[in-house]
Amino acid sequence: MTNNYDTGRLNLPFVGISTFGKRPYVEDWSSLDADVAILGAPFDAGTQWRSGARFGPRAVREASTLFSFGHAGAYDHEDDATYLPETVRIVDMGDADIIHTDTEGSHANIEAGVRAALAAGALPVTIGGDHSVNIPCIRAFDGQGDIHILQIDAHLDFVDERHGVRHGHGNPMRRAVEQPCVTGLTQVGIRNVSSTAKEGYADARAMGSDILSVRQARALGPQGVIDRIPTGARLYITIDIDAFCPSIAPGTGTPSHGGFLYYHVLEMLQAAARRHEVVGVDLVEVAPDYDPTGSTAILAAQVLMNLLGFVFHARSRG
Amino acid sequence: MTNNYDTGRLNLPFVGISTFGKRPYVEDWSSLDADVAILGAPFDAGTQWRSGARFGPRAVREASTLFSFGHAGAYDHEDDATYLPETVRIVDMGDADIIHTDTEGSHANIEAGVRAALAAGALPVTIGGDHSVNIPCIRAFDGQGDIHILQIDAHLDFVDERHGVRHGHGNPMRRAVEQPCVTGLTQVGIRNVSSTAKEGYADARAMGSDILSVRQARALGPQGVIDRIPTGARLYITIDIDAFCPSIAPGTGTPSHGGFLYYHVLEMLQAAARRHEVVGVDLVEVAPDYDPTGSTAILAAQVLMNLLGFVFHARSRG
Amino acid sequence: MTNNYDTGRLNLPFVGISTFGKRPYVEDWSSLDADVAILGAPFDAGTQWRSGARFGPRAVREASTLFSFGHAGAYDHEDDATYLPETVRIVDMGDADIIHTDTEGSHANIEAGVRAALAAGALPVTIGGDHSVNIPCIRAFDGQGDIHILQIDAHLDFVDERHGVRHGHGNPMRRAVEQPCVTGLTQVGIRNVSSTAKEGYADARAMGSDILSVRQARALGPQGVIDRIPTGARLYITIDIDAFCPSIAPGTGTPSHGGFLYYHVLEMLQAAARRHEVVGVDLVEVAPDYDPTGSTAILAAQVLMNLLGFVFHARSRG
Amino acid sequence: MTNNYDTGRLNLPFVGISTFGKRPYVEDWSSLDADVAILGAPFDAGTQWRSGARFGPRAVREASTLFSFGHAGAYDHEDDATYLPETVRIVDMGDADIIHTDTEGSHANIEAGVRAALAAGALPVTIGGDHSVNIPCIRAFDGQGDIHILQIDAHLDFVDERHGVRHGHGNPMRRAVEQPCVTGLTQVGIRNVSSTAKEGYADARAMGSDILSVRQARALGPQGVIDRIPTGARLYITIDIDAFCPSIAPGTGTPSHGGFLYYHVLEMLQAAARRHEVVGVDLVEVAPDYDPTGSTAILAAQVLMNLLGFVFHARSRG
Amino acid sequence: MTNNYDTGRLNLPFVGISTFGKRPYVEDWSSLDADVAILGAPFDAGTQWRSGARFGPRAVREASTLFSFGHAGAYDHEDDATYLPETVRIVDMGDADIIHTDTEGSHANIEAGVRAALAAGALPVTIGGDHSVNIPCIRAFDGQGDIHILQIDAHLDFVDERHGVRHGHGNPMRRAVEQPCVTGLTQVGIRNVSSTAKEGYADARAMGSDILSVRQARALGPQGVIDRIPTGARLYITIDIDAFCPSIAPGTGTPSHGGFLYYHVLEMLQAAARRHEVVGVDLVEVAPDYDPTGSTAILAAQVLMNLLGFVFHARSRG
Amino acid sequence: MTNNYDTGRLNLPFVGISTFGKRPYVEDWSSLDADVAILGAPFDAGTQWRSGARFGPRAVREASTLFSFGHAGAYDHEDDATYLPETVRIVDMGDADIIHTDTEGSHANIEAGVRAALAAGALPVTIGGDHSVNIPCIRAFDGQGDIHILQIDAHLDFVDERHGVRHGHGNPMRRAVEQPCVTGLTQVGIRNVSSTAKEGYADARAMGSDILSVRQARALGPQGVIDRIPTGARLYITIDIDAFCPSIAPGTGTPSHGGFLYYHVLEMLQAAARRHEVVGVDLVEVAPDYDPTGSTAILAAQVLMNLLGFVFHARSRG
Repeated sequence: MTNNYDTGRLNLPFVGISTFGKRPYVEDWSSLDADVAILGAPFDAGTQWRSGARFGPRAVREASTLFSFGHAGAYDHEDDATYLPETVRIVDMGDADIIHTDTEGSHANIEAGVRAALAAGALPVTIGGDHSVNIPCIRAFDGQGDIHILQIDAHLDFVDERHGVRHGHGNPMRRAVEQPCVTGLTQVGIRNVSSTAKEGYADARAMGSDILSVRQARALGPQGVIDRIPTGARLYITIDIDAFCPSIAPGTGTPSHGGFLYYHVLEMLQAAARRHEVVGVDLVEVAPDYDPTGSTAILAAQVLMNLLGFVFHARSRG
Repeated sequence: MTNNYDTGRLNLPFVGISTFGKRPYVEDWSSLDADVAILGAPFDAGTQWRSGARFGPRAVREASTLFSFGHAGAYDHEDDATYLPETVRIVDMGDADIIHTDTEGSHANIEAGVRAALAAGALPVTIGGDHSVNIPCIRAFDGQGDIHILQIDAHLDFVDERHGVRHGHGNPMRRAVEQPCVTGLTQVGIRNVSSTAKEGYADARAMGSDILSVRQARALGPQGVIDRIPTGARLYITIDIDAFCPSIAPGTGTPSHGGFLYYHVLEMLQAAARRHEVVGVDLVEVAPDYDPTGSTAILAAQVLMNLLGFVFHARSRG
Repeated sequence: MTNNYDTGRLNLPFVGISTFGKRPYVEDWSSLDADVAILGAPFDAGTQWRSGARFGPRAVREASTLFSFGHAGAYDHEDDATYLPETVRIVDMGDADIIHTDTEGSHANIEAGVRAALAAGALPVTIGGDHSVNIPCIRAFDGQGDIHILQIDAHLDFVDERHGVRHGHGNPMRRAVEQPCVTGLTQVGIRNVSSTAKEGYADARAMGSDILSVRQARALGPQGVIDRIPTGARLYITIDIDAFCPSIAPGTGTPSHGGFLYYHVLEMLQAAARRHEVVGVDLVEVAPDYDPTGSTAILAAQVLMNLLGFVFHARSRG
Repeated sequence: MTNNYDTGRLNLPFVGISTFGKRPYVEDWSSLDADVAILGAPFDAGTQWRSGARFGPRAVREASTLFSFGHAGAYDHEDDATYLPETVRIVDMGDADIIHTDTEGSHANIEAGVRAALAAGALPVTIGGDHSVNIPCIRAFDGQGDIHILQIDAHLDFVDERHGVRHGHGNPMRRAVEQPCVTGLTQVGIRNVSSTAKEGYADARAMGSDILSVRQARALGPQGVIDRIPTGARLYITIDIDAFCPSIAPGTGTPSHGGFLYYHVLEMLQAAARRHEVVGVDLVEVAPDYDPTGSTAILAAQVLMNLLGFVFHARSRG
Repeated sequence: MTNNYDTGRLNLPFVGISTFGKRPYVEDWSSLDADVAILGAPFDAGTQWRSGARFGPRAVREASTLFSFGHAGAYDHEDDATYLPETVRIVDMGDADIIHTDTEGSHANIEAGVRAALAAGALPVTIGGDHSVNIPCIRAFDGQGDIHILQIDAHLDFVDERHGVRHGHGNPMRRAVEQPCVTGLTQVGIRNVSSTAKEGYADARAMGSDILSVRQARALGPQGVIDRIPTGARLYITIDIDAFCPSIAPGTGTPSHGGFLYYHVLEMLQAAARRHEVVGVDLVEVAPDYDPTGSTAILAAQVLMNLLGFVFHARSRG
Repeated sequence: MTNNYDTGRLNLPFVGISTFGKRPYVEDWSSLDADVAILGAPFDAGTQWRSGARFGPRAVREASTLFSFGHAGAYDHEDDATYLPETVRIVDMGDADIIHTDTEGSHANIEAGVRAALAAGALPVTIGGDHSVNIPCIRAFDGQGDIHILQIDAHLDFVDERHGVRHGHGNPMRRAVEQPCVTGLTQVGIRNVSSTAKEGYADARAMGSDILSVRQARALGPQGVIDRIPTGARLYITIDIDAFCPSIAPGTGTPSHGGFLYYHVLEMLQAAARRHEVVGVDLVEVAPDYDPTGSTAILAAQVLMNLLGFVFHARSRG
């Protein structure tokens, strides 16, 4: 294995076009040929408080360039492992087309992007946008086999319908369980008051959801949380950045104090990737206008990079 | 005339609940009894670039408290006039209810608010929100007699339909001319590239619009611009804050350099109020997340306060 | 129990006038009829470093609207409890009148507000303003029976007099122990260098104060801290937002690293509410100009909402 | 004349301790020996809306380092003049001591500083702080001969007393005319509603004030404005940064749209320095918390540097 | 002519990868085939006060997406012209490789980029970075025929050598006149004190430079300024964003009050493009960390888009 | 022991010139007579992502004034100790001269400053600037006896040479081990991907480095980490502020999630000061442009103040 310093460019993080990790941009979705396909879903009309997540994909891409040092993979001295060697082919699909004032049309375009990634055999990784973009992401898995959803989030997002709204950022998990391919939910980090009322919790549990607060998850430990997921389940992981403590993720629409610190989530993801096949990922609700220091976008990029590293490290070990 | 310092509170601007100008909040719209009714329309799903105008009403209200010194009216030494004496009764209706992901439902609620103000005989003043909120504002004038619209804006907002979108913030003026009560448009401040293509300009002119750029308006002078409005027209004034130069109005979704400075607009409004009956007002597109110094929200409040002063000063003179 | 979605407004957090929790504003303090009365005390001339806490009440009110989802109470799945049902009547009194350059006059107006709340049988909850506003809050309890003060703060605030200053934000606890009704102090979170010199600590202890640092409080655990308060004491709780770690509460005048994280304080408050009658509350030193992400104001609102929930949950259980 | 690049340090603007213009700091006010003495007056308890001017002196000093290139004086190609050669000795006195909650005590310390500068024969230049610091500055001129005050400001600041307040930032010009040494006022830039009511304008005019709005001053031209000052008057110049347009001076407590642009003020100051002996200066109301780009502090420093250049250029020409 | 809305994507400005104007990214500089080639030069080690211009290229690209509405060209109603039709092929070359601590190496990479553009027959447009990046840009014109430089800037940038520094952002115009291909300089907007001392002005004039301040340029008018450039000269235009007033361009390292407003520069560029062949462009010193509202980056993008429009409009008219 | 309140100034933190802790500024380095000498090293051309650390020294000085209450030393109630009594003489040397575009020249000036401090028998404390300023700091120890370096940092900074770069902020530890006086390294806090590739870790270990991640250090405990340093070693401590969690230190060029919280580092420093002679300190990478709340600069000042307190407390106990 080699690096590309000696023969090519130094390629410092602040240099160059901001695709995810400075990986190739593939505009033609019919010609995808990759292990991982990054899709931006800059839709934020589903928000109930602060908007701005439409700039989430651009902010996460920009932050991801910090992790694009030109080494041949990322060496982690704690794990004594080199993650994401060049054999893992990551591409950036750009963004799904968004139509203002049109939720259904925008969601349909996101679904088309995820379907294109799946059709190419790539792991779809969608960057929101608000959490409503999870709805078309899950829809795209129709016909792809059963999946279990691991949701890392502050909010349950299990509202069925209110004032006619069924596709806002308070509804995605309710919409997910309606999909035949979704066999169960593990909802971790849930805390404080939110748009989901008491009935929503009862409904979720009745439909097979396992709900854990931050304190409950900390008491179990990262491995303990993951051990509650059914053995052998194929995992779709949806990460709402507000699962994290506002201290490291202030840049989001509806921050909620008492969230996870970095290693809590990192270790859950590492444990999940070791035990389960990960078939899809989304990370949502990064709103850069509330992130003047950039630390939220950096967190999102760092989490995604590490998660991808864990997934493909596990795959390489069979 | 008296002030309320000696008998009551000092009531410094930073003290107290942020209604518009610290005027009374009237939650029950069926009991409105006022000369002016302020309505918040915190809808921003119609935006095509930066969102955040949903927090416009709150920001403008907060800024308006700066202009609430407890004098008995606001004395202007240049005009040697005292504007907005206590006999002008201003109330704050609060906000129209917004339903995320539902443009039509949200717009209907805004329309209901403006209709309530009109039914009470109050001058409706709507604070956006993005410029799409002008659509229900104008709808509410159906059956209220003919109106001419004076639009002060950087953008023509005359797109008919694109990808099915007819009610975004690029469409309101096109929607307005479809209303039977709208007899004409004067569009001032229009400049640079925007979402309206060449055909839109041709359409607008064909439908009777008078389009003036900032430089053209400056060459005419404020009075010269207003002189182009048909004599005797009842005016509805819609002010997009991006009509102003980004130097004083950076806090907006789609800023456009080369805009109006303060006195340009102030003097057009003063001239308009002197010559025409003003029957409705909206001020839109203040996005406080892009206004770290607060100067955009202060500008919006200052413009509205002055416009109301001019309107009622003219009315008092008959 | 019902919610108000089906019959009324959706009432998203970003919609509407910013009173505390969107609860009714009662301008006439002689007609208060409530269980909880929120009073703003926007005074910051007592600060020794960064000012700006005068905008604290407005910022906390604005943030509190995030917690105003229209459910019939706030369901907490960890406690399996619904806090603050509609039977708990909360009102917003607005702000005490502040007179610039006049500390005594401003403090007197704050005292009048707290006295009005107490006269109405409501729990007074004062939002600062700098910590000097605690001085009139405590004065208002004269004649209301004995109280013990639980102070959660980074700083001891026990300076007697320096350069003639006796009513700045470094003096309130010293002023408190001079009141006959104050029987003791528990001061938690105290750390690092501050305006109180070594003699102040000795004085405080001599006057019966129990001083605990963050590390000492963590070692005791939340329940262990509360167990040190005399059994049966009626509690007045004063929370300086700088008790918290600057990671979640940067928006304050004199931040001090090494503070409490969210659950540390939440669990102390829950334990206190279970064991003691809470007769008054203030939360001070939120300075929104140093809070670009809004997380400090959200923290303040979240802590107050939860504390009120704990207090009335305990009362409902007798 | 030489520069100090070749023999000494490059001394880039971002290098070194932030005294005004990187000039010497003289802590012992009894040993002042200079032509100009800079005094910080970081008092902001006189403000009626946004505070934070207490950090004005530090911000202006920091910004002034931008103008400290190590040339032997500042060459201006438009005037073909080299301003502030090394023969003009400028020193920084540091700040007057401020006592929180004590307006009188703080003002007395400011007065002592200005008196020390005057006693040393230096031109006193005070950097605020809010405009109330002008009160002690003028007091210090008692016994120093007659002065005329040129006030460049958005607000008249001519309130006599309200709720007992006589020394806030709305009162200084009223306090000034009470001083026997003050023979007249020229108040330029006054506009919009402010804390001064109609009676204040009448009082000011009755006491000999000449009041000009921005538009009136622009119509007269810079020289025309200065020509209205009595010939031979010794001038004290007080500059409230809010005289400027918020586009270039957003960082202030009470911004007012419609203010002066840069050359308007620069040319008035140049004209004044040519025709009059300038005996004292203050520049107030820079509030860096509202100045995220730094342009307000840079404006203040640039104006002061140029004004000092004009004053000593005029002196050198006799 | 057609647009691409009906057949393709709506492509709102906030959607998609941020190349300049969302134009194609051409990573392989040997295969350039375009009319305009955009090159990022993210080098800021030449700055003498605030750094951060290294993020200028990314910020300008991001802002330029605002001007990428999918019309077939940009219709300007004032000029009744459609600029930049699809026949003008613009590509984004990405960034020159930057080597930290190595000015010469970084400059060499920038020079290579400009040479590649020239070799392909494309108009090179370089986005800085600090103004030192102009040095390699001009070097690349060696052997390309004579050029005259039109510099729009606050600062003369004519320092020869100081402390050994010859390639910082105070040196580029001095370096330029040393190039045989440079036949003259027109330096417009120069004002206030800067790093260039009096001798620098004398040197510049001796070497044939025409120096104009903002006020001098305003007195001449845009056409009058351009008329001073030798007839028939092939123009290289270098725009330092600090030529503009800090009111619209605060996001730069060394802002200087008294700069140009938007139309001043726009009209000079339009006049220049009409009369001269424009053979190269750079725009430098956008520092987004000092641009919290984004207006500086938007200005830069808007100016570049318009300049390119003017250049190719003139070319199309022969 | 006395304080200086009664006889002198109140000296609130926001008052006065910003030297470190408001201690005396000693411009003439040949006349240093102090126990501690603070040196600013405002060099940031060695950065690989966000620059701006050149303003680190000024920001840390400004923040340090918060810790300058005029007590006779800083009383810590947890330790029941008074740190930094007046007998510990601290002076501020100002900044080393920086020459833009010239890394070697700038580093030489920094080295000269540290050598001056050492020659005067003072403890040199250097405030960066980026981490490359550690290179000249260590060079200055040549001939001063053996030292062991305790590095608290997120990144290993052990790159030998890449594209010719040997003195950037990724190289200092590699340069350090080349110095004969450096006997070993303890590198604590190292985590995530960075500019050091896998070979760098192997090289570092081969040269005697002890590398610990945050989680490894937490598992050992602060004392456990310090126990790994060879007994009797004279310590040079280099603190990169990015060792801390971005939650409390966002204001830095290359933040890395998962860092230390406050007490982790404080307790390591206290343990180190108790067991080892501390002969030099640097604290680097504070970049105030990314620190809108000021908490990073406050952290840096608070850590330095405490470390100095620990060092001299240990010395006083022999």
